[in-house]
Amino acid sequence: MAAPSVAVDNLNPKVVLKCEYAVRGEIVMHAQRLQQQLQTQPGSLPFDEILYCNIGNPQSLGQQPVTFFREVLALCDHPCLLEREETKSLFSADAISRATSILASIPGRATGAYSHSQGIKGLRDAIAAGIASRDGHPANADDIFLTDGASPGVHMMMQLLIRNEKDGILCPIPQYPLYSASIALHGGALVPYYLNESTGWGLEISDLKKQLEDARSKGIDVRALVVINPGNPTGQVLAEENQEDIVKFCKNEGLVLLADEVYQENIYVDNKKFNSFKKVARSLGYSEDDLPLVSFQSVSKGYYGECGKRGGYMEITGFSAPVREQIYKVASVNLCSNITGQILASLVMNPPKVGDASYASYKAEKDGILQSLARRAKALEDAFNNLEGITCNKAEGAMYLFPNICLPQKAIEAAKAANKAPDAFYALRLLESTGIVVVPGSGFGQVPGTWHIRCTILPQEEKIPAIISRFKSFHEAFMAQYRN
Amino acid sequence: MAAPSVAVDNLNPKVVLKCEYAVRGEIVMHAQRLQQQLQTQPGSLPFDEILYCNIGNPQSLGQQPVTFFREVLALCDHPCLLEREETKSLFSADAISRATSILASIPGRATGAYSHSQGIKGLRDAIAAGIASRDGHPANADDIFLTDGASPGVHMMMQLLIRNEKDGILCPIPQYPLYSASIALHGGALVPYYLNESTGWGLEISDLKKQLEDARSKGIDVRALVVINPGNPTGQVLAEENQEDIVKFCKNEGLVLLADEVYQENIYVDNKKFNSFKKVARSLGYSEDDLPLVSFQSVSKGYYGECGKRGGYMEITGFSAPVREQIYKVASVNLCSNITGQILASLVMNPPKVGDASYASYKAEKDGILQSLARRAKALEDAFNNLEGITCNKAEGAMYLFPNICLPQKAIEAAKAANKAPDAFYALRLLESTGIVVVPGSGFGQVPGTWHIRCTILPQEEKIPAIISRFKSFHEAFMAQYRN
Repeated sequence: MAAPSVAVDNLNPKVVLKCEYAVRGEIVMHAQRLQQQLQTQPGSLPFDEILYCNIGNPQSLGQQPVTFFREVLALCDHPCLLEREETKSLFSADAISRATSILASIPGRATGAYSHSQGIKGLRDAIAAGIASRDGHPANADDIFLTDGASPGVHMMMQLLIRNEKDGILCPIPQYPLYSASIALHGGALVPYYLNESTGWGLEISDLKKQLEDARSKGIDVRALVVINPGNPTGQVLAEENQEDIVKFCKNEGLVLLADEVYQENIYVDNKKFNSFKKVARSLGYSEDDLPLVSFQSVSKGYYGECGKRGGYMEITGFSAPVREQIYKVASVNLCSNITGQILASLVMNPPKVGDASYASYKAEKDGILQSLARRAKALEDAFNNLEGITCNKAEGAMYLFPNICLPQKAIEAAKAANKAPDAFYALRLLESTGIVVVPGSGFGQVPGTWHIRCTILPQEEKIPAIISRFKSFHEAFMAQYRN
Repeated sequence: MAAPSVAVDNLNPKVVLKCEYAVRGEIVMHAQRLQQQLQTQPGSLPFDEILYCNIGNPQSLGQQPVTFFREVLALCDHPCLLEREETKSLFSADAISRATSILASIPGRATGAYSHSQGIKGLRDAIAAGIASRDGHPANADDIFLTDGASPGVHMMMQLLIRNEKDGILCPIPQYPLYSASIALHGGALVPYYLNESTGWGLEISDLKKQLEDARSKGIDVRALVVINPGNPTGQVLAEENQEDIVKFCKNEGLVLLADEVYQENIYVDNKKFNSFKKVARSLGYSEDDLPLVSFQSVSKGYYGECGKRGGYMEITGFSAPVREQIYKVASVNLCSNITGQILASLVMNPPKVGDASYASYKAEKDGILQSLARRAKALEDAFNNLEGITCNKAEGAMYLFPNICLPQKAIEAAKAANKAPDAFYALRLLESTGIVVVPGSGFGQVPGTWHIRCTILPQEEKIPAIISRFKSFHEAFMAQYRN
């Protein structure tokens, strides 16, 4: 019998055709090849290192982990250390007491056991306390689902909410492609709403409403609204009044609010602060009955930047008991999230406090990282705004700039001839000339006819001047080559 | 406008109706409630502790982690320790050198960074070397995809292979419900084949062929065959000749072989050994071109039992480059698996060797665990076989016994009156009488009209006599109550 082989054309078309993930796409793979070339043939390229500005991965670019967090993790991994005298000279006193109390909250002190599918109860209690302290409103451990980073939580909610291609999810454009990929994988419809670049990536309720009505008129059952605050890739921080309007809109329209709040610690301007959507809803007097709301948080971002630990949680409020049971069932199929990530999620929501032995060093590490990120954001923003044809909104938060590049017609034609989107063509030329890796705006969505790149603010501060200077030379040469 | 709320009847029916996950199902939730009752009202139940025999979670029942593995993890979590003199007295020399070499293989020594979506290259090299040494056939780091335990790998493959409800996956019955849940979540058809209880849960090619043809005659496009070896929940270890027949069958029928090999270290009888399906295929002279094969491995099982660390990998051979690209794309959407789990996967595939400082203690820990598991398996197997109406095959491997319970007709009627499957009725009564938690066979599938329970062999060895005695008393009373 002839064996029908596994081929791309008999794989799931939702994966093959619909799912794109730009932050790990063609340009990144090309960069990895160039990096290998630099190792095997040094001097063969016009630059001597690849500068990854494509992904929010701070520790890959030299950011150091927060010492207190890592001390606690090491002690929890190898609890025998707690019985040894030498440990007192190697670890801070509050790391020792925190690890002791975390281990006491884990049944059998077993960090190597599967936990409850929502995560270890004691850690969820700690996270709920951290949320309550942040928001000034109560939080409940039963509402917390610990996850391997924020992504699995997003997939879980999409898997539950999307029944077929007529179920829609309102998503910002530009958006982080996790959302478009997850909606595609689960077979739903992405209903776009545009952030307004001219008002600093403002979220306008009138546009939301228009897009919702437009989708409904096409027979789409819109189930949920995704908001990313602070914004990715756009870096804006929503004003509280804007958040209030969003909350009211979701209540009035019967939408689940999916709030991506993973950049809650990344705010770089004095006139903005982070407000969780739950705090905004409760401050408006909305109870659980008014609004189904999911808040996603991660250990990968903030000043901690522990991407490799894959920790995170979702806080779920406003769902009925039978619906919560289904969420629990989906969580159960993967048994539980990794315990190291669970512990870390409890730590980032309850870092050292004034009076703790580690507080001064913790505070210095945190402030050092956030202040440096703010300086880097400003330097890159200013540099972009000084270049011909580039305008760049302020990075109020998150880890990215999303400059608008007005590409000359000749460049657009050259891109077309090369069978590339114009911003992908630009990003590829940038990579090949300078080693700088950015993601084309077309990977996030943008107003048709506009072109952007997403550039992280994460390279080490001492490298920023060289990046700016390389970028400037490239851009000037590019514009000179293609000027209309 | 009226808000259409989120309700069970507007959630994804693949989740709500089709997905069941017995090992974390009704009986386990009831056990958790009873455990709380024991805490708040001691003495209110006829037992003083809940004995979880429902899930392969060794460390939750007191199994200690292997010291060497945890030393390496702690050092990788907090690399500053490597620069301190005290560390030499706290950690074994080979743990220090292993952590040093692992950190050297991670770009920037950044255990807090997202890795390559397949996992850190140096760790994949180590795993490939471990596989090659196990099998005596080469293995390639490019074929390894590190995953958060085995489950996400299984989901990834199901997501790729299943296009719609006409795509089928051949699964053993009884089976670990990860497979039925994953096929349901991805909207495919589970095509069952029965393991033969009377031949020690033998896998008969004639039955496989019959089920395949039957499915094809119904218009099902059968894409893959799942084999769990050693078996879960059945505990058998396949003979090499049987594996050869399975490999030939998959080649001849054009099926992907999905080999769940997570219990490869759990073998308790002298006359059986573990052979990976890849080794069997290569020994037959089959090359990559002959057979698409996926092997799943996990850090959760074996003698290591590190369930909470969520480490694992799949080794993928025999897929074309374009198909591999799609697998990579799916892996990318979750960015990467957790680095602690990645490191642990590299360790379990490359444990200390003769001559290493930790070798003697490592060997003693490993042998102690596996020998004790073998004794527990035998004691429980003998106990089951001594009870009226119960027959139990040998636990050759894995972590479970799956005894057949011939329930009296009156018990079956009582179950029906209580609206329970008869084996669920039995398991619930067992729980309420003794605190012992097992999973009803109906959660795994079984020949209609037969009834089973799955019971792990994991409770601490000193508790086994009490478990046997409690179980015996319960069973005798149950049979006395319902005897025909």
